[in-house]
Amino acid sequence: MKRTLLAASVALLAGSAMADDHQQPNIIYVIGDGMGFEFISAYRYAMSDLETKTMAETQFDHYLTGAAMTYPEDDTWVTDSAASATALATGEKSYNGAIGMDNDKTSLKTVMEYAKDSGYMTGSVSTSQINHATPASFFAHHPSRYEYNQIADLMGQQILDGDAAYDVILGGGQQYFIRDDKNWAELIEQQGVSVITDMQQLEQIQQAPVMGLFAPKGLPHAIDEGKDSLARMTSTALRLLGNGDKPFALMIEGSQIDWCGHANDIACAVHEMDSLNKTLEVVNEYIENNPNTLFVMTADHSTGGLTLGRDGEYAWYSDRVMDIEHSIAYMREKMLVMDADLWPRYVADLVNFELTAEHIERLAAASALEGEVREDALHQALAYITGDITGTGWTSSGHTAVDVPVYATGPHSEQFRGFMDNTQLGKRLIDIVR
Amino acid sequence: MKRTLLAASVALLAGSAMADDHQQPNIIYVIGDGMGFEFISAYRYAMSDLETKTMAETQFDHYLTGAAMTYPEDDTWVTDSAASATALATGEKSYNGAIGMDNDKTSLKTVMEYAKDSGYMTGSVSTSQINHATPASFFAHHPSRYEYNQIADLMGQQILDGDAAYDVILGGGQQYFIRDDKNWAELIEQQGVSVITDMQQLEQIQQAPVMGLFAPKGLPHAIDEGKDSLARMTSTALRLLGNGDKPFALMIEGSQIDWCGHANDIACAVHEMDSLNKTLEVVNEYIENNPNTLFVMTADHSTGGLTLGRDGEYAWYSDRVMDIEHSIAYMREKMLVMDADLWPRYVADLVNFELTAEHIERLAAASALEGEVREDALHQALAYITGDITGTGWTSSGHTAVDVPVYATGPHSEQFRGFMDNTQLGKRLIDIVR
Repeated sequence: MKRTLLAASVALLAGSAMADDHQQPNIIYVIGDGMGFEFISAYRYAMSDLETKTMAETQFDHYLTGAAMTYPEDDTWVTDSAASATALATGEKSYNGAIGMDNDKTSLKTVMEYAKDSGYMTGSVSTSQINHATPASFFAHHPSRYEYNQIADLMGQQILDGDAAYDVILGGGQQYFIRDDKNWAELIEQQGVSVITDMQQLEQIQQAPVMGLFAPKGLPHAIDEGKDSLARMTSTALRLLGNGDKPFALMIEGSQIDWCGHANDIACAVHEMDSLNKTLEVVNEYIENNPNTLFVMTADHSTGGLTLGRDGEYAWYSDRVMDIEHSIAYMREKMLVMDADLWPRYVADLVNFELTAEHIERLAAASALEGEVREDALHQALAYITGDITGTGWTSSGHTAVDVPVYATGPHSEQFRGFMDNTQLGKRLIDIVR
Repeated sequence: MKRTLLAASVALLAGSAMADDHQQPNIIYVIGDGMGFEFISAYRYAMSDLETKTMAETQFDHYLTGAAMTYPEDDTWVTDSAASATALATGEKSYNGAIGMDNDKTSLKTVMEYAKDSGYMTGSVSTSQINHATPASFFAHHPSRYEYNQIADLMGQQILDGDAAYDVILGGGQQYFIRDDKNWAELIEQQGVSVITDMQQLEQIQQAPVMGLFAPKGLPHAIDEGKDSLARMTSTALRLLGNGDKPFALMIEGSQIDWCGHANDIACAVHEMDSLNKTLEVVNEYIENNPNTLFVMTADHSTGGLTLGRDGEYAWYSDRVMDIEHSIAYMREKMLVMDADLWPRYVADLVNFELTAEHIERLAAASALEGEVREDALHQALAYITGDITGTGWTSSGHTAVDVPVYATGPHSEQFRGFMDNTQLGKRLIDIVR
């Protein structure tokens, strides 16, 4: 880790020098979806030793520069991922649900579109589908984030029209781009864009443009089977975008920190953070060798009302978090096709903790139900059990309004210091790439 | 507010110049007890307009520089106020409960003791009793924060021995310093220290040393009757400490943000934040006129597992928070000596919101109980009602482990940037005053 820290310092110095040369810097813009300060602290403590207090050094803590407000231009302080991604991509506030559009449903030009105009190579990697709120807000304009097919149509049509603002776009989303009514994969391959659907192909791709669709919707959770996905996609994106004469702008989203937050699944969230940390190892190595790169990272909001400690107890059991072997979603799926008598043993084995009478009662209560209600109750029971074991509190299946962290290094990073609004990140990045 | 911001910029520039002159700067060290980022966001949004999104400018947001870890040297990641105040005061980790002592129960020299050695005037103001964990950790050394009388004895004896590290100490605590078995007020007045017990005397005091004890234990909550207490004490402390030839070091604690957090009382917490903000108005005016002053502010931890939003709803009703007229503690006290039939109307009047059937049921359930259990249940019911109305989540009556914000301006403030451990704040301040 020390090597990386030193490299970062060197990069910082070198980067400042490069900025003086008036060359446009590369932009690596990382969004941890849902990654409030609670998730940052949770990850660091989960990686550290509770007993000896030997602290893990993360790939990002040393880049902390400030914090940002996230509220939308709506009748609430609590943003969704679309309004905040629109703010981060365009520098303008909008309503919850907006994809690259303002409150009047007028399209807002994004940092990626400005970058393209300035001759940048551009791209995005995410563990969500590529037409999900965050990546979509950088490349498309639609009044509603939930119209996945329509957003896929917009993004596909851009290729056909020759005005796509992305050269490399990697994530999930097969079911939106390869449909019975419209096979965008075929259509855009005819335009010379490679479309890959297997992560094994990532290392073979030699040049942009490329679209990667590695799952029907989002990729599998890091804790279950996707721990290196984001890092691998990022390696490929940096290789394809970052070896030419042009500067590049790449958005990297750790999409599923948020999804684990919505599920109130602490082990899932910590492993998504680890997936992002592994990705930042790749990014830091790139920055070390390419100091004219501005790195900015933030979150779009915090999710789930996560708290490290609950119920009056001054404890958060990081070791027990790391003992949990699978996501709640994974356990639930297996359990729903299993004799419910086996549930307590199965859960105890996967969380590596002896269940209490209350835990077993909650599972039994769920097992007595039918259909979707049963699924929901089982999910709630598993969220309760993992929260109770680990001392993790949750207050919501949605988002919260707390300020989120901002990290930056490299040329112009001094513009991302202190307290700011999330729109300022978008505005400043647009000023830099214009 | 604009004037203050401009003044802050001027102060920043002037402060840097002064630092170059190698004069030791004044230190204003503010601790918002329990003031995690959630409390910062809650206060800002509560002061702003939910509908128009006209944002309030606070006295502190523009000073944000980073964030700090708070974990103790104990078998947990979650600190108490004693271990964290010890870290902030001495630069060393310790166990939960420690007052200015390390894990081996050896006294640790505090920033105030170093400052005194260097010829500084020193002091503290707090809305807690002056021998409470945070102020005590700057001036005393004791293995247990809960031995209030013994800590008062240590602080009183220092005056008699002529080695007190405080010239001005203002807060609550009459019942510990004026006891049947020991009247420290009398004893220390004989040593030439003014002891005042009425806030009206604050403006009359002409010189240090002075001890102010304005309540039996802590001062009343800001929302109930103490909204200007901290600002008034701070004005006096700055007047007494800051007009001589010597530099000074002053610790200011917004003690009861934490207490409202423990009570899961959002309106109470926001008003304590407002009391701190009013105090920072006084501080900012001082800094404007005295630029050789280093201002550092942080929290010792976050309290209550506060979240802005809960139960899947994308909302936090800041307007409803501001409609609540009294603390839960105040309402509970009145209600316990009132016919329980009157409870629903009384609560609805003070929270300015029509109660739901569930709210009324919870009050009725509490009223059916006896003694302490009844008091607790009533408190829980009021916490539930105010949380439900305002969309505020809480997960604990205790603390949580999330990183806390750091703010700084003035000479040497660049040392308080980025990510750090709470011990680094203490260490760096000690280096500056030594």
